[in-house]
Amino acid sequence: MQRQADRPPVKVGVLGATGTVGQRFITLLSAHPWFAIHVLGASSRSAGKPYAAAVNWKQVTLIPNAVRDMIVQECKPEAFIECAVVFSGLDADVAGDIETAFRAAELPVFSNAKNFRRDPHVPLIVPLVNPGHFSIIRQQQLLHSPPLTKGFIVTNANCSTTAHVIPLAALESAFGPIDTLMVTTLQAISGAGYPGIPSLDIIDNVVPYISGEEEKIEWETRKILGGIADASPEQRVGDQVLQQFDMHAHTPLKISAACNRVPVTVGHMINVSVGFGHRPPPSPQQVCDALRSYRSEAHLLGCPSAPVQTITVHEEPDRPQPRLDRAHQDGAGVSVGRVRQCPVLDIKFVVLADNVSIGAATSSIINAELAVLKGVLQS
Amino acid sequence: MQRQADRPPVKVGVLGATGTVGQRFITLLSAHPWFAIHVLGASSRSAGKPYAAAVNWKQVTLIPNAVRDMIVQECKPEAFIECAVVFSGLDADVAGDIETAFRAAELPVFSNAKNFRRDPHVPLIVPLVNPGHFSIIRQQQLLHSPPLTKGFIVTNANCSTTAHVIPLAALESAFGPIDTLMVTTLQAISGAGYPGIPSLDIIDNVVPYISGEEEKIEWETRKILGGIADASPEQRVGDQVLQQFDMHAHTPLKISAACNRVPVTVGHMINVSVGFGHRPPPSPQQVCDALRSYRSEAHLLGCPSAPVQTITVHEEPDRPQPRLDRAHQDGAGVSVGRVRQCPVLDIKFVVLADNVSIGAATSSIINAELAVLKGVLQS
Amino acid sequence: MQRQADRPPVKVGVLGATGTVGQRFITLLSAHPWFAIHVLGASSRSAGKPYAAAVNWKQVTLIPNAVRDMIVQECKPEAFIECAVVFSGLDADVAGDIETAFRAAELPVFSNAKNFRRDPHVPLIVPLVNPGHFSIIRQQQLLHSPPLTKGFIVTNANCSTTAHVIPLAALESAFGPIDTLMVTTLQAISGAGYPGIPSLDIIDNVVPYISGEEEKIEWETRKILGGIADASPEQRVGDQVLQQFDMHAHTPLKISAACNRVPVTVGHMINVSVGFGHRPPPSPQQVCDALRSYRSEAHLLGCPSAPVQTITVHEEPDRPQPRLDRAHQDGAGVSVGRVRQCPVLDIKFVVLADNVSIGAATSSIINAELAVLKGVLQS
Amino acid sequence: MQRQADRPPVKVGVLGATGTVGQRFITLLSAHPWFAIHVLGASSRSAGKPYAAAVNWKQVTLIPNAVRDMIVQECKPEAFIECAVVFSGLDADVAGDIETAFRAAELPVFSNAKNFRRDPHVPLIVPLVNPGHFSIIRQQQLLHSPPLTKGFIVTNANCSTTAHVIPLAALESAFGPIDTLMVTTLQAISGAGYPGIPSLDIIDNVVPYISGEEEKIEWETRKILGGIADASPEQRVGDQVLQQFDMHAHTPLKISAACNRVPVTVGHMINVSVGFGHRPPPSPQQVCDALRSYRSEAHLLGCPSAPVQTITVHEEPDRPQPRLDRAHQDGAGVSVGRVRQCPVLDIKFVVLADNVSIGAATSSIINAELAVLKGVLQS
Repeated sequence: MQRQADRPPVKVGVLGATGTVGQRFITLLSAHPWFAIHVLGASSRSAGKPYAAAVNWKQVTLIPNAVRDMIVQECKPEAFIECAVVFSGLDADVAGDIETAFRAAELPVFSNAKNFRRDPHVPLIVPLVNPGHFSIIRQQQLLHSPPLTKGFIVTNANCSTTAHVIPLAALESAFGPIDTLMVTTLQAISGAGYPGIPSLDIIDNVVPYISGEEEKIEWETRKILGGIADASPEQRVGDQVLQQFDMHAHTPLKISAACNRVPVTVGHMINVSVGFGHRPPPSPQQVCDALRSYRSEAHLLGCPSAPVQTITVHEEPDRPQPRLDRAHQDGAGVSVGRVRQCPVLDIKFVVLADNVSIGAATSSIINAELAVLKGVLQS
Repeated sequence: MQRQADRPPVKVGVLGATGTVGQRFITLLSAHPWFAIHVLGASSRSAGKPYAAAVNWKQVTLIPNAVRDMIVQECKPEAFIECAVVFSGLDADVAGDIETAFRAAELPVFSNAKNFRRDPHVPLIVPLVNPGHFSIIRQQQLLHSPPLTKGFIVTNANCSTTAHVIPLAALESAFGPIDTLMVTTLQAISGAGYPGIPSLDIIDNVVPYISGEEEKIEWETRKILGGIADASPEQRVGDQVLQQFDMHAHTPLKISAACNRVPVTVGHMINVSVGFGHRPPPSPQQVCDALRSYRSEAHLLGCPSAPVQTITVHEEPDRPQPRLDRAHQDGAGVSVGRVRQCPVLDIKFVVLADNVSIGAATSSIINAELAVLKGVLQS
Repeated sequence: MQRQADRPPVKVGVLGATGTVGQRFITLLSAHPWFAIHVLGASSRSAGKPYAAAVNWKQVTLIPNAVRDMIVQECKPEAFIECAVVFSGLDADVAGDIETAFRAAELPVFSNAKNFRRDPHVPLIVPLVNPGHFSIIRQQQLLHSPPLTKGFIVTNANCSTTAHVIPLAALESAFGPIDTLMVTTLQAISGAGYPGIPSLDIIDNVVPYISGEEEKIEWETRKILGGIADASPEQRVGDQVLQQFDMHAHTPLKISAACNRVPVTVGHMINVSVGFGHRPPPSPQQVCDALRSYRSEAHLLGCPSAPVQTITVHEEPDRPQPRLDRAHQDGAGVSVGRVRQCPVLDIKFVVLADNVSIGAATSSIINAELAVLKGVLQS
Repeated sequence: MQRQADRPPVKVGVLGATGTVGQRFITLLSAHPWFAIHVLGASSRSAGKPYAAAVNWKQVTLIPNAVRDMIVQECKPEAFIECAVVFSGLDADVAGDIETAFRAAELPVFSNAKNFRRDPHVPLIVPLVNPGHFSIIRQQQLLHSPPLTKGFIVTNANCSTTAHVIPLAALESAFGPIDTLMVTTLQAISGAGYPGIPSLDIIDNVVPYISGEEEKIEWETRKILGGIADASPEQRVGDQVLQQFDMHAHTPLKISAACNRVPVTVGHMINVSVGFGHRPPPSPQQVCDALRSYRSEAHLLGCPSAPVQTITVHEEPDRPQPRLDRAHQDGAGVSVGRVRQCPVLDIKFVVLADNVSIGAATSSIINAELAVLKGVLQS
């Protein structure tokens, strides 16, 4: 990572620093080649305490020494004013107001919360899929009152959505648009945060329901895999024609998702069946080849946290598996296996992704790396 | 169960009595109102020992006193000659030869093994679905050389197939044929027998593969939900026109199955999406009503082990769940929940069934009860 | 249960009816031969609703029809005034005040909460061990201001304490006092109630700590296994010499407990080593014989919920096990296995008890049955 | 690791390379600064195949490229003749003969198997505890017929023994001999190898028994913590007075172990109570200080795989925990927590160790590193 020498460290802040996603941010950022943790924000209950005293640390590595004695701040923009990047691991019930305030204070926010994912001016970026959507940020800033020059909000996707859109993007890139998609998830408990799922609900059990999850998958997938187009002429601000997310409008995409919680600590597994718009559809072997050869723009540009191999394709009939395969490449890539023909649609396969890494904090961090490399932060 | 007084106990034997399915047979039969365990058969390693010494008992109830000191026999017809019914919990690697020998010795065999499920003269009966398929038995006996009068083989289905064909049969009965079916299973470890799945493979893990299972579900579903029709004229034996299973030929049924093993002890959960042949398809409410009001012939005829309520429909958004719902009605019914529209096919829902009860031993026992009540044993 | 004909049903109330212990009370009481559920009490949030709407039902059986539509009351004595018995499944943070008020209103309270276990006038009764301690109730009533004639509080023990004092009582009965005791528990998650232990804390994990549990085991064991003696002369009320719990004073009992939480749904397992006061100590075989032949007063008096076999001794080297053995006798007895010599103390063994049955609700119910049979309720 | 430059790589072989311990050896050795994998040995079923085709790889990291295509050999000395060190992950049923043959062929064997642990001339070395026992090797070689100059066998301890002797050694070093020890283990499933424990035996369950384990802990602990002394004069070979392990004879050590298997993938937890020979015993604080300041000879000499901090002492009341703490220092150290007074003995605490790292392969590797540094290999 030769860039490290070229530039001074980028000061970053973490909102929701004591929560599950916040702890993962800190773990990852404390070893990051570009970013240096400058401020930690949490609720007023934690503010004023050293981080080690405020947090109920649940990571499998120890609290990094660099933050152990850092005094936790309240989540107010003043304390973060020196930060070039703010990562948000806030819960949805407070993320809306706080992230809005940070943006208004000209701070760039990279959020894991769901609050702004459906906002027509906020990009929903899975960094290994659609970094092109950063282009909407200028419009987000201009439409703000008063217009902003540095502040913006970028979100990343729900952890399940992230897992499956990566291979889907690779398939669309190789074989043209997908028009039908059926996904059944087997999601890890860590996806629900801490304390999250009570153990009495999940040991020796499966829960075939996750509130709001199926709708998120069905909606977010279209935004991420879709493009950006000019809005209709009547939608303009002054002289400017607005841009909007086209929600995969070129080929309407039918999606049906069914979500299950399973007694696995980390690693979302998804059973996917896809139907392609173009006939004939690709063979399983062609699908494997396309998945293996997919290269993300994040990797090609040199994002240090982007995986070298975006998608690992497994040949063994019973892989990937969460416990064995979630940690490869520090959880930054995804695994695909069991690529075979689907008797109803065209192709079916399974996807595995580390829901707390590429499914959450790692995606935000690669998004910020992309923003650095694409010059978005200087805007 | 007033019939108990009317008739003397029916002597039954159990093949594979020390295995997982055999233990469940013994648990259920030891409290059965009609059947009395007369002989226990197992491998030569166990033969000659008292049952309690031969078995590695793994049930949550104690070994029934009635069998504790019964001497285990080898699986040869001579020892079972007084039995009116023989239940087979044999493993597939030995079931073929032994069940063949028992049938040839004029013993009626109710088998859990997969060996004869695809035999064109052996019915594959899920007792809450297709007891009409008993009619093929006469042909099975006539085609035997020499023709049989009492011996036959009846199989029940794979534990996953059993779970989903019950609601599917109810839906076809109410709304006409299904033409498309996508199922994703989350199957319990007990489905693999004992020792079965190594714990290192499944704790904190999911295995997205069960050898041969997807093919079984796709094939068996068609045989069970299909009818029996006259074969083509050239397929006859002497003057007799043969009958054959039509494999749902009236409405070709596209099925795609994806199977996963999850860390649950008992209870297979299945995510199902169905497409109907008739337009418009039923609404979710109509589906719920049809499932609730479905009555099995087994129950209507008075089979003592048939559940009163074949299908329990749950209203709560997060049910059924294996740990909470598998034991209702002694595991003899199935639970359905989350009935809702499918954006790709018509309707989606989840099914839960106790894989060791209705998914295995209980189905065999109800099949034998049906055989008693329908006069099949007297043939 | 021939007594059922002799007497009208006893009206009972349940405090904390929507909680984990309350649900178990309702499950057990709805099938009880003597007791009839008359009132259900819960927090003001639940009061006024039908029970089925107020509760988040988590039992493996369905909500009994008898309570499904019963309107939940607030936990105030007025609503319970017709009850002859009140069972309390209240949490400790509210149990103190409410149970005090109920006693003052002349209601007999059988409590699972810890609040009064150390009260010098409240008996801590494990029904299969020390029903003789009911004798302190008269003093409890007389010392109340104003003196009571019907109201009192009886507690049962912590779920871990209950498990091990049953075999210990059998051993003291046969071989004289124990003077040294080392116990290491492996406790089920259901012991912590609902939502209780977060799944992220216990899947693929063990937590070697349960707040306050070791102290409870060390203290409660002495109160339960000890006797009742006259207090010193200066401790008298008017002319009356007070009685007090002697805390096993005749032979001081050294106890060391270490408590662990394990990923098991139901069933506390305890590794026990004991040292006896008398030399020579009993052999393992003598211990097994004494445990097997122990008969509880509750059973001998005819309590319908008392197990026939108080202690089941397992011969297999690897039993008892929670999943296989917790449900025997409806969870009302305990299992002991691996009785062998201890190289440091005298004898070691393992105990298993269903922590939600004999460890909680079942003990309260047998205590109430004992109160009926011993005439305590008429006092 | 500056020594790397000083010396050429040491060629090593791995016996039992396809098994659970063998896979861990390969994972660790493939990144080792001194050792280079030269030969892989396994059963005749695997011999002749590329390693990747022979192994059912179950590690959470991928198969190292360096061994992927290495052809597996049979476990015969000829194939290993260039190796300076042979690591054995063989199962006990074959380890005896094979390790004997390797030693006779002048190969130094570092074994995980139990076969030679009780041999009076084979050291049982926990590398963070008793590397002084290497001194017996010269006698082992001299007593061989014919006498050996390079071949020998060194064993490491059972995974549970290893965990607790490390803090016990630190305590004896600081406070003098321990005379009483009670340990209750909660052991991970990986301790039983693969396939090992059937999942039906351990999900939602605890098994309070591990065959032979309690005896191993009680016996091995004395050999490891004891010294080496001159045998009685009549035990001599020619003129030479023999040396023997004194089994902690200076202070007879009473040990009682109780072993349980729990549903945890990796990480043995042990509840320990100790009594000291000297009065007064140390306080909990003194114990914590002594544990923290313990430095192993392996670390001081510069073994690259020895942990910097041998024993990590946790202050939180609920730590260590297997899932959170097993991976610290690559599993090479142990964690201790809950140090407190024991009401029966003197001090109690819990220990956690990674049973597949320091409990198995890592110990063998540090033993080999010690052999290099102490000049044992040159003998």
